Amino acid sequence: MNNRRWVLASRPQGLPKPENFRLEEVSAGTPKDGEVLVKNLWLSLDPYMRGRMSEAKSYAKSVELGELMVGQTVGEVLESKHKGFAAGDKVLTGLGWQLYGCQPGAELFKVDAARAPLSYYLGLLGMPGMTAYFGMKDIGEPKAGDTVVVSAASGAVGSVVGQLAKLAGCRAVGIAGGKAKCDYVVKELGFDACVDYKAGNLYRDLKQACAQGVDVYFENVGGETLDTVFKLVNMNARVIVCGLISDYNAAEPYGVKMFRAILVNRMKVQGMLVFDRKERFGEALQALGGYYAQGKLKYRESVVQGIENAPQGLIDLLQGRNFGKQLVKLA
Amino acid sequence: MNNRRWVLASRPQGLPKPENFRLEEVSAGTPKDGEVLVKNLWLSLDPYMRGRMSEAKSYAKSVELGELMVGQTVGEVLESKHKGFAAGDKVLTGLGWQLYGCQPGAELFKVDAARAPLSYYLGLLGMPGMTAYFGMKDIGEPKAGDTVVVSAASGAVGSVVGQLAKLAGCRAVGIAGGKAKCDYVVKELGFDACVDYKAGNLYRDLKQACAQGVDVYFENVGGETLDTVFKLVNMNARVIVCGLISDYNAAEPYGVKMFRAILVNRMKVQGMLVFDRKERFGEALQALGGYYAQGKLKYRESVVQGIENAPQGLIDLLQGRNFGKQLVKLA
Repeated sequence: MNNRRWVLASRPQGLPKPENFRLEEVSAGTPKDGEVLVKNLWLSLDPYMRGRMSEAKSYAKSVELGELMVGQTVGEVLESKHKGFAAGDKVLTGLGWQLYGCQPGAELFKVDAARAPLSYYLGLLGMPGMTAYFGMKDIGEPKAGDTVVVSAASGAVGSVVGQLAKLAGCRAVGIAGGKAKCDYVVKELGFDACVDYKAGNLYRDLKQACAQGVDVYFENVGGETLDTVFKLVNMNARVIVCGLISDYNAAEPYGVKMFRAILVNRMKVQGMLVFDRKERFGEALQALGGYYAQGKLKYRESVVQGIENAPQGLIDLLQGRNFGKQLVKLA
Repeated sequence: MNNRRWVLASRPQGLPKPENFRLEEVSAGTPKDGEVLVKNLWLSLDPYMRGRMSEAKSYAKSVELGELMVGQTVGEVLESKHKGFAAGDKVLTGLGWQLYGCQPGAELFKVDAARAPLSYYLGLLGMPGMTAYFGMKDIGEPKAGDTVVVSAASGAVGSVVGQLAKLAGCRAVGIAGGKAKCDYVVKELGFDACVDYKAGNLYRDLKQACAQGVDVYFENVGGETLDTVFKLVNMNARVIVCGLISDYNAAEPYGVKMFRAILVNRMKVQGMLVFDRKERFGEALQALGGYYAQGKLKYRESVVQGIENAPQGLIDLLQGRNFGKQLVKLA
C-alpha cells in the first residue's frame, strides 16, 4: 500500500518556507508483532513543531534532515498485531505527517467516537486541552475573583484556559490578533474581555481590561506581550509558561525587560509541558470531557484539506492566521 | 540630645553619589507612650536601599526627598515607655540611618547578646540569613546530590545559601568577583567551587564547576550572570529570585535572553522577600542559631566606621567592593 509523508528537507531560518519540507511516496509497511497499522484521519498542527525543525535544544530532540515530521494524529486501525486493538478501532497516535503508519500498540490510546468528534481528541480533549487544564490546576491555581489573562486566546490552548478561568469564578481576559478573533473570544467563548494586540495599544487596552491587575497569566506567545503583561501583574501572581511562539521564528531571542517584576511582585513563573503528566491524562480527560458533555466548553477548529497542504497549514499557524485549533483532514 | 541622620537629598541616576545624601543634625526626640528611645550601635547596609532611593515601583515605597534613609539597626534602649522593654535592652530596629531614634515597642525585637555578637542579628541571624533560609526551604527545595549555584556568594545572603546547601548534601557552587572572594568562599565557607565572574569566562568556568548541570540557582545579581546560569540549568530547576543588583543602577533594564529556558526545562522561577514571612522569623532564627551554635555556619563582616561614612559604604556595596555582610559601626 502506498503511503505519502512529509520529511524535513532543510532547516528553516526564521519562519519556515514550503521548500523546507519534502513530500515522499513510500510503502506503508506491515505491522510487526505488537504493532498496529493505522490509517490517519486527522493530523494536528502545533507551534511546538517549529522547535523540532531546529537544531537548538528544546524539550524534545530535533527532527533530523530527511526524517518524518513529527505530530499527533487520530486514525483508524487497519490491521493489528497487538491484542489490545482490532481493525476499525479509533486511536490517538504519534505517527506524524503521513497517511499511514505502524506503531507499537503500547504507544496508542483508544478514543471514543461516541463521546466527541474524533478530531476533538487532538484539541479540546487532547494535548491542548490538557495543557490548559494542568497549567491552570497545577501552576495557575486560580481563585474566585482573580483576573486571569491568556495570550493566543482564540487558539487551542488559550480558548480552554479562559473557559476554565470562568468556571473557577475568575475574570477571564484574552489577548488575540484582530477584531474577529477578539469578538469570538468574548461573544462565543464567554471571556469578560479580549484585547487586540494588533490594534497597537496593548498596554493601555490591557490595563483597562484588567482594572484589578493580573493574578494569573497563561503565556503562549512571549516577547513584547510578556513584557507588557508583566507591567500589570499583582503581588504573588502566577505565570504558566506554556509557549513562546513569538520566539520560535526569531533569529535572536527577545530580551525580557520586565524580569524584575518577578522579584518586586514575588511572582511564580513556571514552565510546563503536558507530556510530563502522562500518568494524569485520565484525570484531565475526565474533567474536560465532563465539562464538554455539560455544554460548558466551546471550541473551534481550523481545517486544512489534504496532506499536501500540511506545510502551509503550519506556516499559517505560526503567523496566527488560523482561527481555533489547527488540523489537517487526511481522509 | 543631639541626633545625626542621613536624608535623601536627590534621586540618583545610575550609581548613587555622595551628593545624593545629606547629613542633618536634629533633636533625638523623646519617646511617646508605647515608644522606646534607642541608641543605634550598628546599621545594616543592603542592596535593596538603592531601590528605595528611586521613584520606580519596587517592593516597598520609595524614600521621599528630605526623608530619613531607611534601614535596620541594632541598638540599646535608653528610655522605654513600652512595658516590654527596659533601658539596657538590646533591640533590632527599623530606625534607619541615624544615631538615635524613637520607635513603637511593638515594632522592635529583643536580641540576645549572649547567643551571638550583636551585629550578627543584622546578617547571619537577621534578614540576610533568613532570606537564605526561606529561599532555600520554600523555593529551592534542595535534595541531596543537587547542584546549587548562588551569585554574590561571598555576601551576606550568598554565604549562608551555600552553607545551607552543603548541610543539605548538595554540591555548592558560588559566583563571586575576584580571586580573594572566591578563595574565601571555597576555603573558609566550604563551597565545592567558586567561579570568578571577573575572569571573563563565566560560561566556560561555570560549566566546568557544574558538570552535572544546575538544579537550584539562588539569584542575587541578575543580568548576564542570570543568562549564563540559565544556559546550564537542568530539567525542573528551581530559581530563587532574591535580588537583581546589576539592574538597580542601570538606566535601562537588562533584557533576559534565556527566558525560554524556563519553558524548555520546565523551571520554577520565583521571587521572594523575607518580610513576607514575618510570622516565621522564629523558625528561621531557631534553625540558623542552632547551626551557628554548632559551628556549622561561618560568616564574615565588612565594617565601615562612623555614621559619616554610611553613604560611601552603600556605594561600595553596590559595586561589590565589600567582603561579607556590610555594616556601619555607629558607636
